[in-house]
Amino acid sequence: MTALMTTFDDAELLAALCAIAGEDRVRAPRAADLSDDTEGAGLRGQAHAVVEPGTAEQVAEVVRWCYAHDVPITPRGAGTGYAGGAVPQGGVVLSTAGLTRIRSFDPALWRIEVEAGVLTGTLQRRAREEGLIYPVDPGSQESSTVGGNIATNAGGPHSFKHGVTRAWVTGLEAVLAPGELVRVGGPVRKDVAGYDLTSLLVGSEGTLGIVTAAWLRLIPAPAAAFPVAAVLPDARAGQEALEAVLVSGVVPSALEFLDAGALAAAPAPFLPSGGGFLVIAEADGTTEAEARASRAELVEALAGAEHVHAPEDLAGVLDLWRWRDGVGHAVSARHGGKLSEDIGVPMDRLAEAVEATVEIGARHGLDAVSWGHAGDGNVHATFLLDPSDAAQRERAATAAHELFTLAIELGGTVSGEHGVGLLKNGQLRRQWAPAAVAAHEAIKAALDPKGLLNPGKKLA
Amino acid sequence: MTALMTTFDDAELLAALCAIAGEDRVRAPRAADLSDDTEGAGLRGQAHAVVEPGTAEQVAEVVRWCYAHDVPITPRGAGTGYAGGAVPQGGVVLSTAGLTRIRSFDPALWRIEVEAGVLTGTLQRRAREEGLIYPVDPGSQESSTVGGNIATNAGGPHSFKHGVTRAWVTGLEAVLAPGELVRVGGPVRKDVAGYDLTSLLVGSEGTLGIVTAAWLRLIPAPAAAFPVAAVLPDARAGQEALEAVLVSGVVPSALEFLDAGALAAAPAPFLPSGGGFLVIAEADGTTEAEARASRAELVEALAGAEHVHAPEDLAGVLDLWRWRDGVGHAVSARHGGKLSEDIGVPMDRLAEAVEATVEIGARHGLDAVSWGHAGDGNVHATFLLDPSDAAQRERAATAAHELFTLAIELGGTVSGEHGVGLLKNGQLRRQWAPAAVAAHEAIKAALDPKGLLNPGKKLA
Repeated sequence: MTALMTTFDDAELLAALCAIAGEDRVRAPRAADLSDDTEGAGLRGQAHAVVEPGTAEQVAEVVRWCYAHDVPITPRGAGTGYAGGAVPQGGVVLSTAGLTRIRSFDPALWRIEVEAGVLTGTLQRRAREEGLIYPVDPGSQESSTVGGNIATNAGGPHSFKHGVTRAWVTGLEAVLAPGELVRVGGPVRKDVAGYDLTSLLVGSEGTLGIVTAAWLRLIPAPAAAFPVAAVLPDARAGQEALEAVLVSGVVPSALEFLDAGALAAAPAPFLPSGGGFLVIAEADGTTEAEARASRAELVEALAGAEHVHAPEDLAGVLDLWRWRDGVGHAVSARHGGKLSEDIGVPMDRLAEAVEATVEIGARHGLDAVSWGHAGDGNVHATFLLDPSDAAQRERAATAAHELFTLAIELGGTVSGEHGVGLLKNGQLRRQWAPAAVAAHEAIKAALDPKGLLNPGKKLA
Repeated sequence: MTALMTTFDDAELLAALCAIAGEDRVRAPRAADLSDDTEGAGLRGQAHAVVEPGTAEQVAEVVRWCYAHDVPITPRGAGTGYAGGAVPQGGVVLSTAGLTRIRSFDPALWRIEVEAGVLTGTLQRRAREEGLIYPVDPGSQESSTVGGNIATNAGGPHSFKHGVTRAWVTGLEAVLAPGELVRVGGPVRKDVAGYDLTSLLVGSEGTLGIVTAAWLRLIPAPAAAFPVAAVLPDARAGQEALEAVLVSGVVPSALEFLDAGALAAAPAPFLPSGGGFLVIAEADGTTEAEARASRAELVEALAGAEHVHAPEDLAGVLDLWRWRDGVGHAVSARHGGKLSEDIGVPMDRLAEAVEATVEIGARHGLDAVSWGHAGDGNVHATFLLDPSDAAQRERAATAAHELFTLAIELGGTVSGEHGVGLLKNGQLRRQWAPAAVAAHEAIKAALDPKGLLNPGKKLA
């Protein structure tokens, strides 16, 4: 990772940022501003200044000044990313964490307009208070921001039924180069007047524009939701069980898996030890009776499993999901750290991806496990490592590269929900044909001609 | 509408097309190739030749030859559009109607890969045979193609619950300039490796690339669906009823409306005559009991209506939807023709849009009615006219322009599901800020530098 050449004057930059946002919103970079939650890769960036504007107009002004003075801008939400997307490469870190207003909320119309710095968990709670849900639930939901979720098109367990972030964004306010605040879409649910800039910005990781606010759809909360956990002997049997769930006719609200290694790392009191593969399928409903009826169908679909755990009381349901949320930490604890990827494969190739992850790890002398969003074919293929061991980190990076090759060979993607950031630069070129890569690059050049918006990220 | 300057040699063009696709797939343009289903606007284009390739590779070759020889290309599905998007402006009409293969179908995995020329109705029936649905149901579903639906990001009554076309497309095969066949996305349900070219192409009306095939998601068919029709005294009361449906906690599978004029034009035997506003809310469920329970909740939410018609038998349900599907034709029959738009407004502005449509018509001496997808705020605001009367057509065009102004003032869009085509060129400039319009134009220039892909369409 090399620093970008910079030609701007630091003092002039700081003075400009202070003039725009106020002195209390400008600071010298701290260690926490220069990395993200990418474990195992040891990412540490550099920056000249951090600015945390309080309004979208200030964001536009910062971008305008930086664009005019050739200063790179790294947009940053809560810094909980897994791919280095918010790790700066010089210039200004533009934090959207100060944009925390809920601008409007119309529960009766199932819609809300929030600024980019609102925490996803805050949004979810506000919706719940009115009997609604915002169903996108990445693992970082309590600490990540809506803006960060939009930048990576975040998903989560409930994306199987409800879709990823993009499915919930009906409009965006964003700053485009060279520093113009625009709105595309809005509180309308359908719009084909222009190209879909909203969808283009979602998942673009701050490389095409900086999202300052979003109009989001919400839906009524289910009356109840019951997870059904089933232990299968191995990944092949697990995949058959997953397909049995799909043919049952129930649309599960979540459809998750854990492989044997993940199960061993995160022992659950309600499961027999030594399981080969765990499927979690959740049934919900607008009435509790409906959810129970769907639950019964899922239990029947999974009846061939070695063991089924299907809590019917709220405490049991919460226990199961709390345990599932803790899997990442439990896996990290094994050797102190991990390199966790998020490849996506067609659902019928899931078992192959799970088995190959272990094989790839073994070839590089690393324990490897996986878990994730089975229904979406989204596999958190993970290599366990001691983060202080540089050689292990290097072997893990090599293993990850082989994993990307595997995902592409299986007809999948190198990233399902974490994004490309710094870590997966260059992988798209292996996944897409040259003409599609050229289109990707042409769009970047068209919307960021100076290449100052999150430079060095999401490169084809 | 002026023809583009052409510099190519007709004989050379025809010979090239025949060499690529075979003589039986090349023809001189017929009248039917030069217009679409746009009523009231009298659109008639011109073209030098029509080619209907049998394979995606042939599409790429045609584009490659045309791009090298500066020949404009107008992609065309079934020609059922409402905005002139497939009306050629010289050059080649490239019909995708010959791409009719279902390439793969995995019912157990809820996914299908179809070529662009497959009829939407054919896709729907194949899905139904396996207990699944493809829930996008534009009025033209029996005659329009999947490719055409993708080009306009088509919606329909059931888009309220299920979303528009974009929500169902997980990947596309498309020909990009200057003639390269690429695949983005695929049989994976999540993918954030590159910019979202899939969503960018959906709704781009053939101006950024030509879609040759799509990977689509499907879901299990509901066990039953019951529409509840409620007559309200006027649009204001209708809007209150719609909001009562939303707060009921049920997610209706469709949420439609007809205003007084549309009701008068399409008398229904199961409704009292003279209704001021009709709401249709549909309840579905994975079991019949579930659908009936939701139906009961909708009936309760609409209990304040003047009249409620809620058929419980299949014949009654089909009757109601068949009648709803016929509204457009019934309205056309009144004066022989109509100019029907598809503005979208925030749902809480629906009554204003409905009332203003009638007022705008009256100011221009035209009967005006509206109906549409209430839950999505998508209003088919319609001016009735005698299509042989040029003065009426002109007044209708002026009225439509005022309607677009209204939609923008209400925070909405000039097109919810029909697209921009030729008819709405220039409107985006009124809806979006200059910097967003510049981004729209920069994307077009980046992906179609010669401006040969559906020239003259979807202009900002």
